[in-house]
Amino acid sequence: MAVEIERKFLVQGDAWRSLGQGVCYRQGYIATVGDQTVRVRVADNAGYLTLKGPTVGNARLEFEYPIPLAEAMQLLDDLCDRPLIEKTRYTISVADVVWEVDEFHGDNQGLILAEVELADEQQQIDLPGWIGQEVSGDRRYYNTSLVNHPFTQWADAGSEVPS
Amino acid sequence: MAVEIERKFLVQGDAWRSLGQGVCYRQGYIATVGDQTVRVRVADNAGYLTLKGPTVGNARLEFEYPIPLAEAMQLLDDLCDRPLIEKTRYTISVADVVWEVDEFHGDNQGLILAEVELADEQQQIDLPGWIGQEVSGDRRYYNTSLVNHPFTQWADAGSEVPS
Repeated sequence: MAVEIERKFLVQGDAWRSLGQGVCYRQGYIATVGDQTVRVRVADNAGYLTLKGPTVGNARLEFEYPIPLAEAMQLLDDLCDRPLIEKTRYTISVADVVWEVDEFHGDNQGLILAEVELADEQQQIDLPGWIGQEVSGDRRYYNTSLVNHPFTQWADAGSEVPS
Repeated sequence: MAVEIERKFLVQGDAWRSLGQGVCYRQGYIATVGDQTVRVRVADNAGYLTLKGPTVGNARLEFEYPIPLAEAMQLLDDLCDRPLIEKTRYTISVADVVWEVDEFHGDNQGLILAEVELADEQQQIDLPGWIGQEVSGDRRYYNTSLVNHPFTQWADAGSEVPS
């Protein structure tokens, strides 16, 4: 169990691409109710089952369990809402901060988000030049929202993300 | 992963009580959507997280993972719908068949259900004398239904279960 405190930003430009290695993520959601989510994820040939509680401020309870890869694949195939979330995650360290940059594919192609996990809600961070507008708390950018309202279907998608 | 094929019955009389040992179960549901459930269970001082798919006929997909007891307790406390399901499970072997008899407590006190898991949908079983009316497929007796509509609140509870 962990308490997850994070901030989320749009990404601008391509300067971040050379700063980290990408890993393919495929994930889906089972029985999402409000903020409370049950997520199945396959990343780097490993399976995970993750439960998250409601968001309070920037924080939420998170429980993650490794599960057999074959079962994770079957859960994605048989039980998860469609479309699945497919993205490449780049892990980028800048100063003492680790950024996770998610480049989405499939129905969310064109969207690139950067997340940073904080030690506490007051932690100050320096924003690299490739960090754009903050979207923490904007529900449209929740991965669960991107299942029901994928980025490529946003009417104003072109103006949302600087390229 | 398993495919669960089961039949469920009401229980009559007390003859079953001497046939098996009881174990306390405490369980709750996170983000139930229709038949698809995510269950947290504490049984015999161990924690489990179980995902079940929609029921098709008498069968449904089931994935169960052991999780740390302390995390299971916290999930029950913080993330699961109220009321929790509290019951004593008796495991009773009759001939080649293993019966699970659940005696409910708390908001579902008075309800006693027996379940049997089948090898396949066609398997014939002998019903012991303490087995009453079959309630397979009756959604009121789903554990998830007993959260939202506990047995003690059923208007006709008195006539449902022979005592």
